[in-house]
Amino acid sequence: MAREFEREITAKELEQHFKEHSVAEFFKKNMQMLGLTGKIRTLTTIIHEYVTNSIDACEDARILPEIEVRISELAPFYYEVMVKDNGPGLTKTTVGKALGKLLAGTKFHRLIQSRGQQGIGAAGVTMLSQITTGQPIKVLTGNGKETFACEISIDVRKNEPKIANMQDLKKEFRGLLIKARFKDVKYVKGEQGPAEYLRRTAIANPHVTIKFIDPNKEKFVFKRTVQQIPAKPKEVKPHPKGVTVDELITLAKHTKAKKVVSFLKNDFDRMGEKAIQEISKLVSFDLNKDPAQLRWHEAEELVKAFKKVNFLAPRTDALRPIGKERIEKAMKSIVEPEFIAVVTRNPQVYRGGFPFQVEVAIAYGGKAGKIINGQKKIEIMRFANRVPLLFDAGGCAITKAVNSIDWRRYNIKDIENTPLTIFVNLISVFVPYTSAGKQAIADEEEIMEELRLALMDCGRRISKYIAGKQREYERKMKKETFFKYIPEVAEALHKVTKENSEMLKKRLERLVLERLKLEEKEVDDNEKKGKTAEES
Amino acid sequence: MAREFEREITAKELEQHFKEHSVAEFFKKNMQMLGLTGKIRTLTTIIHEYVTNSIDACEDARILPEIEVRISELAPFYYEVMVKDNGPGLTKTTVGKALGKLLAGTKFHRLIQSRGQQGIGAAGVTMLSQITTGQPIKVLTGNGKETFACEISIDVRKNEPKIANMQDLKKEFRGLLIKARFKDVKYVKGEQGPAEYLRRTAIANPHVTIKFIDPNKEKFVFKRTVQQIPAKPKEVKPHPKGVTVDELITLAKHTKAKKVVSFLKNDFDRMGEKAIQEISKLVSFDLNKDPAQLRWHEAEELVKAFKKVNFLAPRTDALRPIGKERIEKAMKSIVEPEFIAVVTRNPQVYRGGFPFQVEVAIAYGGKAGKIINGQKKIEIMRFANRVPLLFDAGGCAITKAVNSIDWRRYNIKDIENTPLTIFVNLISVFVPYTSAGKQAIADEEEIMEELRLALMDCGRRISKYIAGKQREYERKMKKETFFKYIPEVAEALHKVTKENSEMLKKRLERLVLERLKLEEKEVDDNEKKGKTAEES
Repeated sequence: MAREFEREITAKELEQHFKEHSVAEFFKKNMQMLGLTGKIRTLTTIIHEYVTNSIDACEDARILPEIEVRISELAPFYYEVMVKDNGPGLTKTTVGKALGKLLAGTKFHRLIQSRGQQGIGAAGVTMLSQITTGQPIKVLTGNGKETFACEISIDVRKNEPKIANMQDLKKEFRGLLIKARFKDVKYVKGEQGPAEYLRRTAIANPHVTIKFIDPNKEKFVFKRTVQQIPAKPKEVKPHPKGVTVDELITLAKHTKAKKVVSFLKNDFDRMGEKAIQEISKLVSFDLNKDPAQLRWHEAEELVKAFKKVNFLAPRTDALRPIGKERIEKAMKSIVEPEFIAVVTRNPQVYRGGFPFQVEVAIAYGGKAGKIINGQKKIEIMRFANRVPLLFDAGGCAITKAVNSIDWRRYNIKDIENTPLTIFVNLISVFVPYTSAGKQAIADEEEIMEELRLALMDCGRRISKYIAGKQREYERKMKKETFFKYIPEVAEALHKVTKENSEMLKKRLERLVLERLKLEEKEVDDNEKKGKTAEES
Repeated sequence: MAREFEREITAKELEQHFKEHSVAEFFKKNMQMLGLTGKIRTLTTIIHEYVTNSIDACEDARILPEIEVRISELAPFYYEVMVKDNGPGLTKTTVGKALGKLLAGTKFHRLIQSRGQQGIGAAGVTMLSQITTGQPIKVLTGNGKETFACEISIDVRKNEPKIANMQDLKKEFRGLLIKARFKDVKYVKGEQGPAEYLRRTAIANPHVTIKFIDPNKEKFVFKRTVQQIPAKPKEVKPHPKGVTVDELITLAKHTKAKKVVSFLKNDFDRMGEKAIQEISKLVSFDLNKDPAQLRWHEAEELVKAFKKVNFLAPRTDALRPIGKERIEKAMKSIVEPEFIAVVTRNPQVYRGGFPFQVEVAIAYGGKAGKIINGQKKIEIMRFANRVPLLFDAGGCAITKAVNSIDWRRYNIKDIENTPLTIFVNLISVFVPYTSAGKQAIADEEEIMEELRLALMDCGRRISKYIAGKQREYERKMKKETFFKYIPEVAEALHKVTKENSEMLKKRLERLVLERLKLEEKEVDDNEKKGKTAEES
């Protein structure tokens, strides 16, 4: 029988009903907040969380990442995932926090261009394994000195890791190997599946080697095409134009500076003497005040003053684009197109305070594009800080930018059905995602503009290549048409002039070829003139 | 200068970088997870969180809710919100937890049809006030015995409430009054604004009186049309067909039963002796086992067995629909239509284990519909457990169900431009929302079917009403046409028969009226026959 509480509950009684819940309990009920929703998306998100952590850890330790992923089907909708890297590994102190406690991590407070989230990813995955299979995840890790294996699960009531079967191992191993099982997930081959996620990760991270074995035992190897680890992104200071009052107060509480004046100078980007003098005139209090004592209305005065003062645009040297040559190498190796155009634009700033940078590549012909029902179609690969975005394409600035361009101007008559692979990477310390899912970029005006410029720049080069191919094709057709009639013409001339018909044929052929060559030169000259005009 | 960490970070060093974060810090960075995103949506969500808590508290205490809301504009994008109720109030022990600590609350673990969330709402709103204005929220509360006022904010680092300026007051007050300020929000009058949210809340909760003063000092009063507080929803036991292995393990850990057999009997809906006997044959272990000792694979065996055994469908007596008459009263009072059809369907079950119930009303003519650019348009009001859903209409099963019906069959030629208000309320302990935003219902097959049936049932009645109006109009036109020619015909007949033309006119008029009455009767008879055929 169901219980009933029909009588009145008083305020006093309510006290006993109040319970506190751990963040793990909360997320257990709201797995979709972690992207762990839907059979297909969940499996891709699991791979994303592990692989992202592996690449970040390797780069932090200045190791060229080598990552192995294996997905095995144990039963319908029941899979085992194995991810192995050659990174710095975890210690007995960090292993539980990294994989068995939500909201613990190293990345939360850093203002740094990064792949990772906020210390939820890998532990969220552990929780998913636990609530779908009842099993802990298995970990093997070593740093060259000590190697150990253990099993990790989460005490959901407390949000604390439970570590079991800890075993010290003799064998030397450097890196991290995780094996975990999941139910209610599904492996698919398509555009939103793990194989495509890893392929795109390899394209945007040409210094990483990824090996993948899918549930059908098919092997994929994406070998690194670049031997250098990308320079580490710098931690940036906030630009005055991009800071909110609440953020300013938080910064003021944690600064080492003893006066507001030195707090401003040390903790903000582009804060010069002149700016500080201007600010001091705009606020009602003395800038020699202790920043820890800063009141809300004073912080508000500061933020208002920041809006009035001219600062240099934010420093952009913390941005770490992949780079034109690296993208080209990776695309050539993995996409294998006939032709490719790559553009890395200069850094720009959105909303006055947030630097970003756009990289675009368009690959044409060859194996570019994707095949749907035997038809070649356009393929758009979206990335934010080198991480592939596979979901919510419709709401993303990148998709909108591609759709906003009149591709017929670039010799592409039917963009949907053209064998193109469009690669777009947005780099920023503050990627403006549209939602918590982090799968679509908001269409900030400045970002849209840069995306469009980069796409059009690549479009122009693709256009020329296609135009060249068309001219070549037309010449070939012209030549063939002429050559088809040469025997007849030669025969007719032979009858009129009595000259040797074989010789006449040869001469006519030479004439046609010379004529075609002349035409070609004219087009080239015109193009060169056009180019000079465009560049001047 | 930005710092660089160019040297290698070892696994040991990483230990020092590990930090733990409070759930408040996490949500501060992810306010969109709480629906607190976008200037317009944020203000509506604030009102929603406060009003929902007020209604729930009043109902728990069996008090007829009387709620006052006032929104004042302090400066552009800067508002003060005041919400006052006549509920049981808070005590000095509960006030901090209820309003100043995330993930603390009374509703988290209850399997009960409810409006509220999981102890995030009101505290999330406190945090928003704090990070946009730096100000605490102000609270005045009393339970008839003691009355006090205080200010509440959140220690974000610890996720603990900070209570300041606690004052005991002499005056008697019963209820809760909250005043809070917010920046970066915007008040709008439209369909997604607070006024519309409150209007719809009043329609779906006809026992609540809501007074609202908008930023232009305009007053709205939605008076209760019903004097009874709805019966309290019962706490339900999970149905065996709807339970996952993880949930079974959690239930087994917290049961008071000492044997699995009594655990099954006491803690599940519809678990009879016969079912237990069948289950005992399907599992590999003894059902006299201690449930606390239940292992994962054993729980898995139980869940598999549940799938094979036939159970009665879940109990549906825990569902608390609004009820046909109450919806009709509320709609007539607030929407003021010309005609209304209301259907409360019988409870049904989706995915085998989750009971739900659908209520639909269609109001036609009068003030029904909404006015856009001077044109009357259709208005669709979506509710889940009496809570208005104002966002994400496109992805919602309710919108899909409305669009899936061929309204032309129901005498509605152009549904978009018809003065209709369609009201739909989905009642369930487990509303299948499409996402964390809780603004759209997933299109579960059984739910779609019930929605369609209810809509079509209302549609039929609306159709008859419209047909009746059309016939009346046609009769009127016919009569007018006949009457127009009667003087001429009477004059002609007078010339032929020499009878008095005035008398001829009267007779002809009587003839026409009798003829029209006869037609009317025929139609009614046909309709009665049709109805009988339909009902048999």
